[in-house]
Amino acid sequence: MIIGFQSAGLTAAASARLTNRQAEITVIERRMYATYHPCGLPFAIGGDVPHIRHLVEAAPRLPGVDVMIGVEATEIDRGARTVRIRDRRTGRERQVFYDKLVLATGSLPLKPPIPGVDLGNVFTLRTMRDGEEILAALPRATKAVVVGAGPVGIEAACALRERGLEVVLLEMKPSVLPGMLDPDMSETVIDRLNQVGIKTFCSKPVKEILGDEKVRSVAVEDAEFEADLVIVAVGVKPDVELAQRAGLEFGPTKLIKVDDHLRTSDLDIYAAGDCAESKCFFTGRPIKSQLATTAIRMGKVAGINAAGGDEVFPGVLNTVVSSAYGMEIAATGLTVQAAKEAGMDVVAARVRTLSKPYFYPGAEPITIKLVVDRGSRRVVGGQVIGDGSAERVNLLAFAIKHQATVDELARMEYCYAPPVNECIEPLVMAAEAVLRKL
Amino acid sequence: MIIGFQSAGLTAAASARLTNRQAEITVIERRMYATYHPCGLPFAIGGDVPHIRHLVEAAPRLPGVDVMIGVEATEIDRGARTVRIRDRRTGRERQVFYDKLVLATGSLPLKPPIPGVDLGNVFTLRTMRDGEEILAALPRATKAVVVGAGPVGIEAACALRERGLEVVLLEMKPSVLPGMLDPDMSETVIDRLNQVGIKTFCSKPVKEILGDEKVRSVAVEDAEFEADLVIVAVGVKPDVELAQRAGLEFGPTKLIKVDDHLRTSDLDIYAAGDCAESKCFFTGRPIKSQLATTAIRMGKVAGINAAGGDEVFPGVLNTVVSSAYGMEIAATGLTVQAAKEAGMDVVAARVRTLSKPYFYPGAEPITIKLVVDRGSRRVVGGQVIGDGSAERVNLLAFAIKHQATVDELARMEYCYAPPVNECIEPLVMAAEAVLRKL
Repeated sequence: MIIGFQSAGLTAAASARLTNRQAEITVIERRMYATYHPCGLPFAIGGDVPHIRHLVEAAPRLPGVDVMIGVEATEIDRGARTVRIRDRRTGRERQVFYDKLVLATGSLPLKPPIPGVDLGNVFTLRTMRDGEEILAALPRATKAVVVGAGPVGIEAACALRERGLEVVLLEMKPSVLPGMLDPDMSETVIDRLNQVGIKTFCSKPVKEILGDEKVRSVAVEDAEFEADLVIVAVGVKPDVELAQRAGLEFGPTKLIKVDDHLRTSDLDIYAAGDCAESKCFFTGRPIKSQLATTAIRMGKVAGINAAGGDEVFPGVLNTVVSSAYGMEIAATGLTVQAAKEAGMDVVAARVRTLSKPYFYPGAEPITIKLVVDRGSRRVVGGQVIGDGSAERVNLLAFAIKHQATVDELARMEYCYAPPVNECIEPLVMAAEAVLRKL
Repeated sequence: MIIGFQSAGLTAAASARLTNRQAEITVIERRMYATYHPCGLPFAIGGDVPHIRHLVEAAPRLPGVDVMIGVEATEIDRGARTVRIRDRRTGRERQVFYDKLVLATGSLPLKPPIPGVDLGNVFTLRTMRDGEEILAALPRATKAVVVGAGPVGIEAACALRERGLEVVLLEMKPSVLPGMLDPDMSETVIDRLNQVGIKTFCSKPVKEILGDEKVRSVAVEDAEFEADLVIVAVGVKPDVELAQRAGLEFGPTKLIKVDDHLRTSDLDIYAAGDCAESKCFFTGRPIKSQLATTAIRMGKVAGINAAGGDEVFPGVLNTVVSSAYGMEIAATGLTVQAAKEAGMDVVAARVRTLSKPYFYPGAEPITIKLVVDRGSRRVVGGQVIGDGSAERVNLLAFAIKHQATVDELARMEYCYAPPVNECIEPLVMAAEAVLRKL
């Protein structure tokens, strides 16, 4: 039985089915619709996705999987191996037995404890409802503040700007996309944001959101920004109430603790996705990953194991891509900052080049930063801004997971055609820049 | 001393300089200009590159490298370790001593021995002069035939079509891009070509080119195609006259034989680029690679070794990308056909998906074929058509060179954002499709 039908739950169901043709597989989902694409919400707000309801998908056909939508799990009895479920339409409750249970309950929007965060027109951006409420508020909004300059905050700021609002973006840390980019790379993103008219301020934690019923302004230490619409994008909180009440163990990240097979402290219960802990590829320490792609990979492992297979969930690099007004920004592994915090001695180099040869029209800048462990010469992180960032970062993630050295990256074989890319692959240029420093 | 200042020669000079700060480095180049971008020629003919002269580059500044343009090597005296050089402007000749010599003489356009191939308006597409002559002929041309459907032939056919000509593309093998794509993937390209109005015929070796002074038509076994302009794009021939006269050994591919340090049969002479043999990554057998990217990597190795370093040139996968009217086509490693010819037992799967989520406007089809060795489960080849093909094929090339299995590819970590890519990476889908067959 699988609780939750989003990235992790869906993949768990499909993988369990492939692993074990006999198993009875049931998925229950609290939402009144099957599944949706939270990562698409900013683009529905900006209008790139023309209708927000396009983000909702009908339940994919998974032959031999019983999917119950609009049904919530209210209690797990681990001794009896039952889950109490309630049909939200009829209110009817019943007990369902399980042999193995996968918790894929995901996460909820996080409203930080800022005074005024519950005022009208202060939104999070996680659920379909969030998206619909923001869209409904747009026609009467002219000035917006976005709190948090992670990927969602940046995408939300760009979306509101595309809709013609005056937008201020506030980040409490000293740079945007912290965790993803080092400050030097972050500058390129800030330039872009300012260029499209998004006033971006770092090191500005929000003190208070002011207003009567509705928001009127957002106050930081030394300034106040008028706003009739606020989006708070400071992350998510795991939806783990059920797991807590069932007495499962939690890790230091306050997510459900799992082993490398994604078993919780109850060996018949697996957890996958935003509600479950990941471990860092480098240090092996528990971390929050909470990415859709991590959820998909976790769901696969949990589904296979719950169905009797044997699959290990490896450490994660947190490979991420975001988009700021059409500019791709992607990263994997450790930033210089993160590497130093982990006690590693790293060498990094940054190169700027073009996406296509100088003679081909439409060449765009590409900036790459590569982080390499000095002793082992292994690549440990990469940050890429520009066209093709996602695929380049995917290659770096592959290289890092295969413990490739920067020397191997400098020797990589690649392809070239003028309408497509440069005759010296930017990743090779970056690797050679690191080699000159080593 | 380096003979030739194109991809291989240029990289050899730069790498030699980095390896050895003391070495005297001289490059001589027969052309009257420093370097140019042959891969850009089709796009200058099509008009995407607005001026063909943009493809010519001034000599890049390589501090401490003496570059002589318009100077040709007429003879190598291996005993005396001298090269006789002739200044093409002044006609003056002299002898130059060398300690180590790098031959980077490249290749010349290949005109196959077809009757009529020397008629007027029958062109190859390799040199600046080729490009300029084709551009000059365009205004009076209405019907073109392109002979050979390799990357250059396809790009040339698209270029002529962009200029409004009626275009027929003839390939002697049973599919287009043979060597790069299996016939099933080739169908997608043929569909595209026909769709943009390029009449494409496979299994049609040219028997004769007919005309009086100028071409009038091109005849195959069972048909004759009118043409007032013909581009013959059937590959290149190595420029190895100098090496032949110097008595260097040649391999079975009729290119200069080299060892894994790119030394020729004379240990003081290296060869790199189109004039030198590569070896197949899988079989270790000598092959022709003759790609700009291979030349760059060979030049680096030859330059390092000639300057006293120690670098091995590994086997090549022939990672290639081409573009047909904006559709990217890329490949690396073995096709199913090539794997069978090499005696391997392979499993392949082909998947079609979209470049972006269904809900995001502008999603384009992506088709991927993955070729996997059945016994070892190692990835041995990949073919990708659609946006991001180049970078995906680069990742596959990296995976193949690191002997990654299809299982590892299916577990790869990747990033996702709706404006950029799909939440299931197409490479993962392809790997899973292969796993279902294994």
